[in-house]
Amino acid sequence: MNVPDLIRKKRDGQVLAPEEISGFITRYTRGEIPDYQCSALLMAIYFRGLSSQETADLTEAMMRSGQVLDLSEFPQPKIDKHSTGGVGDKTSLVVAPVAAAGGLLVPMISGRSLGHTGGTLDKLESIPGFNTRLSLPEFRRVLGACGMALIGQTDDLAPADKKLYALREVTASVESIPLIAASIMSKKLAEGIDGLVLDVKTGSGAFMKTLEEARELATRMVEIGTARGKRVQALLSEMSQPLGNAVGNALEVMECLETLKGRGPADLVEICRELTATMFVLGGVDSALPPACARFDALLASGRPLEKFAQLLAAQGGNPRVVEDYALFPTALYEDSFVAPEGGYVAGLEAGALGRACMAIGAGREKLDSRIDSAVGLVFEKKVGDPVEAGERLCVVYTNERAPLPRALEMIRGATTISPEPVSPRPRLLARIPE
Amino acid sequence: MNVPDLIRKKRDGQVLAPEEISGFITRYTRGEIPDYQCSALLMAIYFRGLSSQETADLTEAMMRSGQVLDLSEFPQPKIDKHSTGGVGDKTSLVVAPVAAAGGLLVPMISGRSLGHTGGTLDKLESIPGFNTRLSLPEFRRVLGACGMALIGQTDDLAPADKKLYALREVTASVESIPLIAASIMSKKLAEGIDGLVLDVKTGSGAFMKTLEEARELATRMVEIGTARGKRVQALLSEMSQPLGNAVGNALEVMECLETLKGRGPADLVEICRELTATMFVLGGVDSALPPACARFDALLASGRPLEKFAQLLAAQGGNPRVVEDYALFPTALYEDSFVAPEGGYVAGLEAGALGRACMAIGAGREKLDSRIDSAVGLVFEKKVGDPVEAGERLCVVYTNERAPLPRALEMIRGATTISPEPVSPRPRLLARIPE
Repeated sequence: MNVPDLIRKKRDGQVLAPEEISGFITRYTRGEIPDYQCSALLMAIYFRGLSSQETADLTEAMMRSGQVLDLSEFPQPKIDKHSTGGVGDKTSLVVAPVAAAGGLLVPMISGRSLGHTGGTLDKLESIPGFNTRLSLPEFRRVLGACGMALIGQTDDLAPADKKLYALREVTASVESIPLIAASIMSKKLAEGIDGLVLDVKTGSGAFMKTLEEARELATRMVEIGTARGKRVQALLSEMSQPLGNAVGNALEVMECLETLKGRGPADLVEICRELTATMFVLGGVDSALPPACARFDALLASGRPLEKFAQLLAAQGGNPRVVEDYALFPTALYEDSFVAPEGGYVAGLEAGALGRACMAIGAGREKLDSRIDSAVGLVFEKKVGDPVEAGERLCVVYTNERAPLPRALEMIRGATTISPEPVSPRPRLLARIPE
Repeated sequence: MNVPDLIRKKRDGQVLAPEEISGFITRYTRGEIPDYQCSALLMAIYFRGLSSQETADLTEAMMRSGQVLDLSEFPQPKIDKHSTGGVGDKTSLVVAPVAAAGGLLVPMISGRSLGHTGGTLDKLESIPGFNTRLSLPEFRRVLGACGMALIGQTDDLAPADKKLYALREVTASVESIPLIAASIMSKKLAEGIDGLVLDVKTGSGAFMKTLEEARELATRMVEIGTARGKRVQALLSEMSQPLGNAVGNALEVMECLETLKGRGPADLVEICRELTATMFVLGGVDSALPPACARFDALLASGRPLEKFAQLLAAQGGNPRVVEDYALFPTALYEDSFVAPEGGYVAGLEAGALGRACMAIGAGREKLDSRIDSAVGLVFEKKVGDPVEAGERLCVVYTNERAPLPRALEMIRGATTISPEPVSPRPRLLARIPE
C-alpha cells in the first residue's frame, strides 16, 4: 500500500491492518518514509484514534524496531514500574530498591523531566557521579549485581519510539491516548519483563487531567501488555497536589532516602507501598496484596532497601556516601519562605502550577535540551488538609538566582487555596485496573 | 508564536489570527518551516476546517507569496473562468475565444489533468507546437495581441500554492474545501483580474461528489473574491455524465473547434453559453444574462471566436491550420466500438468510471509526472436520455495499444446503464451563487 493511501485510510476512520502498521513503522524507522508523511498520519491518528488491535500492532512494531532484551539468565521474576509522571513523583527511587530487596529483578529504563513534571533520570543525576547512560552489557552487569538498574532510554531499545516522540513534540500530536500507550508499552516490553505495574496519574499535575482519560490510558496499556502475555496492573492515582513534600531533583532524592529510612511522608509511603506490593503479587512473591503490603513495611523496617540503594549508587558510579551525608548533594544558595496569606486549612496546592513555579526557578525544563538546576525546588511543610495560621510557613523555596523568585512566589500563591473550614485531602489511590 | 503551538491551536478547533496565517505561509514558502510541521497543520485543517476569515487570510497569504499581476495597461475588463474539473470538461477552449471576441481580456492560467479529470494544458498540448510555458512578459504580449492567453502555472505566481499542493498530494489532505478554495483563489487573484466565473462541478465525475459540497466550495470562493473587491459568480453544474461527446485530449480540442464552428453538442454549448454570458455581465459588457446569452450566440455565429482561436494558436506557437485540418492532430492507431448490451434508453454514463477508463488507455495521468497519450479517448454517440438498440454503437474507443482495451471496455460497460423506460437527463446548470 502506498503511504498517501494509508494516511487517507486512517484519516477516513478506517482500521489499519497489522502489516500496514508494521510496514509503516519499519520503513519510517529506516528513513524510507519522510517525516512529513509520518506527521500527517500522527495527526490523523490524533483525530481518529486507534482500535485496541491497532494500538497493540503499533506497540509491537515499535518494540520490534530495535532489540528486545532477553533477561532469562536471571532467576528472579522481572517486574518493572512505570509512572505517567507528575509533580513530586519520586516513587521509582523507593519502589525499585524495596522490590529488589524483596527478590524481584527491576530493569528500569526511565525518562527525563518535561514541562511541569519531573523525571527519574534528572533526579538520579543530582547524585554526584551517578551515570544513567549505561550500555546494555553494563545494564545487565548492574542488574546481576544489584537486582535493579536505573538507566535512560538507549538507542538500542525501541528506536522508532524515540523518532516518533521527537516528531510528535514538534507537530502537536503528543496528547493522543493510543500514541501515549504505544510509546510507553513499546519501551517497557522491550525491557524483557514478566510483569509491569503502571502508575497512571490524574489531576492538574498529570498529563491525564481527568479520571476518565487516565482510565482509558490505563486500560489501553493493560490490554497491550496482557495481549503479549505479560502480567500488568495499573493504579490510577491522584495528582492534584504534589506527591510527598519535596519538588526539585536533589530535594526529592533526599526525601526518597528519608523514606527508605522509614521517615517518609505518609502519602509518598502509601503510593510506594501500593506499587511495590502490586509488583510482589505480579511477580508471584506474594499471593495477595495484604501480605505484599506487609512485606513492603517489613523490608523498609529492615533497612535492606537503603543498603540496596547504596549498592546501586556504587554500581552506577554515584557516591554512596550521599545516603548518610546530604551535604554531598548540590545545595541552593538561597532559602526563602512562602507563608500562608491567611489562616484556615490548606484546601488546594495545585500541582500543575507548582510544577511550573519550579520550572521558573530552574528545576524543570521547557525543552528537551534545557539545562536543569539540581539544587533548587520547593519543600512543603503543609499539605492539603493541614491547619495553618496566617503568616505560618507553607513551603521553603530553594533558589540559586534572585531574579525569578518574585514570579515563583506569585505562582505558588496562585496555586494555594486556604479554606476557613476543615478539608479532607482526596485519597491518593483512586482505582486499580483490572480491579 | 511557535509552530507547534500554532498547530495545536488549530488542532483544538481555535481560530488562527491573520498574522499567524501570513507568518506561517511566508516562513513555509521560504523553507524556514519544515514540511513535517506543515503537513500536520494541513491535516488538522482537514479535520477542523477554516472559518471564512481564515480561508480569506490563507488565500491572501498564498497570493502574496509571489507576484500579483497588474494588467491595468489593458483597457478591457479582465475576466477569467475557472472550472473545478470533470470528465470531458473542455469549456475553456470555447469560452476564452468567445469572451475575447466579445471584448473581454481573458488571462487564463490553467492546470493539468489529474486522476480521472482532464486538464486544459494537456488538451492544448495536443495541438502541434502549442506552447503553454510562457514567461510573464510573453503572457502579456499574447494577451495584448489576442485579448486572451492560455498558459500553465508559473513559479512567479502564488509559489506557496505549488509547494502546499505538492505536500497535500502526498499527505492525504487534498480533499479539504477551505484548502481547495484557497488554492484556486490564490492563483486566480494573482492574475490581476477584475472578475471571475467559477464552474463548480458536482457528481461522480467531479471532485465534489454532492451538491452540498459543491455549494460550500462555491460559496467559499465567491466570499474570498468578493472580499477582495472582485466580481465573482459561481455556477454549480452537473458532472455525473461526461460533458459533450469527446473525452481525450486531441478529441476534445476537435470538439471545441466544432463548437466554435456552430456544430457543438447541446450540453457543451449550453454550459459554455452560461459561463461566457456570466463573464460578459461580470465585465459590464452586458447588464443581464439574457442579452449576454444572445451575444454569445451572435458571436459564435459570426465566426470571430474561431478566428480568435486561430490567432491564439499562432501567438503561442501552435499550428493554426489544425482549425481546418484535423488530420494534423495526433491520431490513434485503433478504433473500436462499445455497443449497447441491450436496447432501451441510456440512463447513466458514470463520468468518474469513464474518466478512469480513459486513464486506463493512456488519456489521463495517475501521477503528475505520468506521460499522456494525446490521441486516445472516447467519443460518445449516445448520451443520457438517448434511445438505443441492442448492439448499436454507444461510443468509439480510440487507442494506441491493444493490451488495455479489454479492461477499458469492461470499465465502460460497468459505467453504462440502460433503462427500458424513457429517461430525462439531469439539467446541466444546477444553481448560481450568488443567485
